[in-house]
Amino acid sequence: MPPTERLVIVGGDAAGMSAAAQARRLRGPDELEIVAFERGAHTSYSACGIPYWVSDTVSGPDALVARSPAEHRARGVDVRTRTEVVELDLPGRRVRTRAAGERDGSGGGEARESWTSYDRLVLATGARPIRPDLPGADAPGVHCVQTLGDGEALLRTLAEVERRPEPRHAVVVGAGYIGVEMAEALALRGYRVTVLDKADQPMTTLDPDMGELVRDAMAGMGINTVTGAGMTGVETGEDGLPRAVLTEDDRHPADVVVLGLGVRPETTLAAAAGLPLGASGGLLTDLGMRVRGRTDVWAGGDCVEVLNLVSGQPGHVPLGTHANKHGQVIGTNAAGGYATFPGVVGTAVSRVCDLEIARTGLLEAQAREAGLRFVTTSVTATSRSGYFPGARPMTVKMLAERRTGRLLGVQIVGREGAAKRVDVAAVALTAKLTVEQMTSLDLGYAPPFSPVWDPVLAAARKAAAAVREAGPD
Amino acid sequence: MPPTERLVIVGGDAAGMSAAAQARRLRGPDELEIVAFERGAHTSYSACGIPYWVSDTVSGPDALVARSPAEHRARGVDVRTRTEVVELDLPGRRVRTRAAGERDGSGGGEARESWTSYDRLVLATGARPIRPDLPGADAPGVHCVQTLGDGEALLRTLAEVERRPEPRHAVVVGAGYIGVEMAEALALRGYRVTVLDKADQPMTTLDPDMGELVRDAMAGMGINTVTGAGMTGVETGEDGLPRAVLTEDDRHPADVVVLGLGVRPETTLAAAAGLPLGASGGLLTDLGMRVRGRTDVWAGGDCVEVLNLVSGQPGHVPLGTHANKHGQVIGTNAAGGYATFPGVVGTAVSRVCDLEIARTGLLEAQAREAGLRFVTTSVTATSRSGYFPGARPMTVKMLAERRTGRLLGVQIVGREGAAKRVDVAAVALTAKLTVEQMTSLDLGYAPPFSPVWDPVLAAARKAAAAVREAGPD
Repeated sequence: MPPTERLVIVGGDAAGMSAAAQARRLRGPDELEIVAFERGAHTSYSACGIPYWVSDTVSGPDALVARSPAEHRARGVDVRTRTEVVELDLPGRRVRTRAAGERDGSGGGEARESWTSYDRLVLATGARPIRPDLPGADAPGVHCVQTLGDGEALLRTLAEVERRPEPRHAVVVGAGYIGVEMAEALALRGYRVTVLDKADQPMTTLDPDMGELVRDAMAGMGINTVTGAGMTGVETGEDGLPRAVLTEDDRHPADVVVLGLGVRPETTLAAAAGLPLGASGGLLTDLGMRVRGRTDVWAGGDCVEVLNLVSGQPGHVPLGTHANKHGQVIGTNAAGGYATFPGVVGTAVSRVCDLEIARTGLLEAQAREAGLRFVTTSVTATSRSGYFPGARPMTVKMLAERRTGRLLGVQIVGREGAAKRVDVAAVALTAKLTVEQMTSLDLGYAPPFSPVWDPVLAAARKAAAAVREAGPD
Repeated sequence: MPPTERLVIVGGDAAGMSAAAQARRLRGPDELEIVAFERGAHTSYSACGIPYWVSDTVSGPDALVARSPAEHRARGVDVRTRTEVVELDLPGRRVRTRAAGERDGSGGGEARESWTSYDRLVLATGARPIRPDLPGADAPGVHCVQTLGDGEALLRTLAEVERRPEPRHAVVVGAGYIGVEMAEALALRGYRVTVLDKADQPMTTLDPDMGELVRDAMAGMGINTVTGAGMTGVETGEDGLPRAVLTEDDRHPADVVVLGLGVRPETTLAAAAGLPLGASGGLLTDLGMRVRGRTDVWAGGDCVEVLNLVSGQPGHVPLGTHANKHGQVIGTNAAGGYATFPGVVGTAVSRVCDLEIARTGLLEAQAREAGLRFVTTSVTATSRSGYFPGARPMTVKMLAERRTGRLLGVQIVGREGAAKRVDVAAVALTAKLTVEQMTSLDLGYAPPFSPVWDPVLAAARKAAAAVREAGPD
């Protein structure tokens, strides 16, 4: 008896393959055929791990693959790698694919096109890195780090550069998470690293005062951060490879260039098929991750918009952790079950240069933009009891709404033990707790783990006092 | 102009002195006189730090004092150490004190008694360790570790024992947090350590399956854990010092004995004055920590009962973190402000033998006792991305109510990065989240800090599935 339905998945990373795995868990191969198309060679990989691969902290690329195509196939998911979906025919319920000449191979040979029909469709096409339309920006040696393939290409360039005599120069354009993590990785590899950002601070995912703490830590590692400096082009040599990154006022030597300018939702196929996109360019879905207005199409991961539960605004938040949750929800629903993804609160954590950085909720500028009145406070406290070996200071900044005292956001910058403390605030945001309520949270206390007032509690106390002091308006 | 009111505080550790400090913050010395009586020599100290002092991980006792009597005095709090309150005269609004002959001195000279009147009274008399009425149990060399004075006495015994030839034997009676932490400290000091507990498992603050993980870790450190073994007495030598701890069936050599049998609320004074006590023996208060039925008496810290927000039952939870919060609330209210302490969710964390142990909410037995029907699940996950150096496994056990899916409790046993993850569950319990809601919590993800499914999220997924599977009844 042939399978009664076919689920087709476009995109073989976190969202797509989590959906596949979850759907398979709920419905066996005799009920549901699952076909997943991936244009690259890898499935279910951790792009977040690329900086650690570049710095040789972890091996790659295999270690970064959570589940290979073969492992997916062994679990009853028909994965077709190096096969790109090039058209969606929604009325005809089919997708057109273009396969490289040799499946899972080098891509050599003639590409083959064909149509595959579906009963249910999942779009998990991810995001594409921003590569500005500037002279030299697409030269070889100018790399993005979005996929494992990108990581492989970058490492080939580095191997090439490292055959030359020292010193080696790297320029990272964009001082967000990826940019700063890549800067550290390249510094650990022995490069002289400059990070450029057109903003006035590194790490604009933090408020300016917190971002400056990141700049200091980078400087401590010998990384030169140049802010207020937008790239105007890449100067290349006769071999076509980079020599320098140019800005309005300056020239920064570069044997290799990494672009960390952010990503945009990859929705070319979806847009061509007339599916609805939000202001961020991401696909619009309902709470079950079904594309709005469609009964048989779901979408998740970096190609969709998600709701920020604090601001009430939709936005594009490309993070693997959301993609995995989306996949879980989509797989459940596409298999006939029920699950929802209510939204995000804006949590992000990173480790850079021995510094732990975390945020959740809204920054000051975001809170203003959302129409909120708020107070802001900041405390410094230690990760363990002050007398306990290894206690390290951290700065906790907290935003709370005036009048209601509701928590709006937390930023933490510190050393060991700082980043994951933001999780307490993430749950508090989800539950819409006030900072006053947070002061009595029953958080774990023991000298090796926390002072008797955990830094988050200390921050809540100060924020609650500021709310009272500010009065109702 | 003399102060218009006097606030008298009985007990100079966390709850009492936090209340004093907070009241002083809100009202100056010209408005409120604050007098605090402490029968020992120290104020505002961390008894939780004693095991680390014994193992020489931290220095003591000064490092364990957050604020000394002199520092309190410099902030306008009239602290009188070595001065015991021996009677409360509530109708007369006064307390009778007995001061050692020489204030802050050795206690030599003749004790002096006097009465001090108050307008507002704070009882922060703490807890007293359980010392069973058995032969030899009060011998010198049999120690509790409740106060810094107890720590000093234990260290004098250890110095004495360490003049003798090796091997040195220590027996710890009671395998709860303090017992296990002390066992580790003594093992680190080079003692052969046996821990006795009359229960069938060590660490009865965890479910039996989780407690066994603690036994394994202790064994790995060479500590012998004997369960199902209640002490029947201490055998002493001609010098009156311990030689062994006796049980029904056995004799365990001991040069020093540490009792970790728990504590009881110290409410002798309060009971004699007719103040209301709960079933646990702790003082009963309202949400503002005011003693029930009284307008001018507050109580907090280890001498009161607190509400468990998950079970709805009151109980005795003697932890420094609660005592500090109580003090904060009492100080605010006693100074004419407004604050409340809503209760606890039962969080406790500890580090033992390189093992991190955490719990919050209810154990299985407690949930049954509270009349709840529930499901129980357990997962093992890593502290960081599996491929990231330093990733260590942890076991997360989760209890959720049937029908509603509400989170009831979490226990975590693991290595680095395990304990403080319980905070996420503590906030979820406070907010009464369901395990299904927890599956979409926006927790921080980055390879050095967490796998893409944080262990708590992985546990919530499994628990949510178990709730669905169990059905409504």
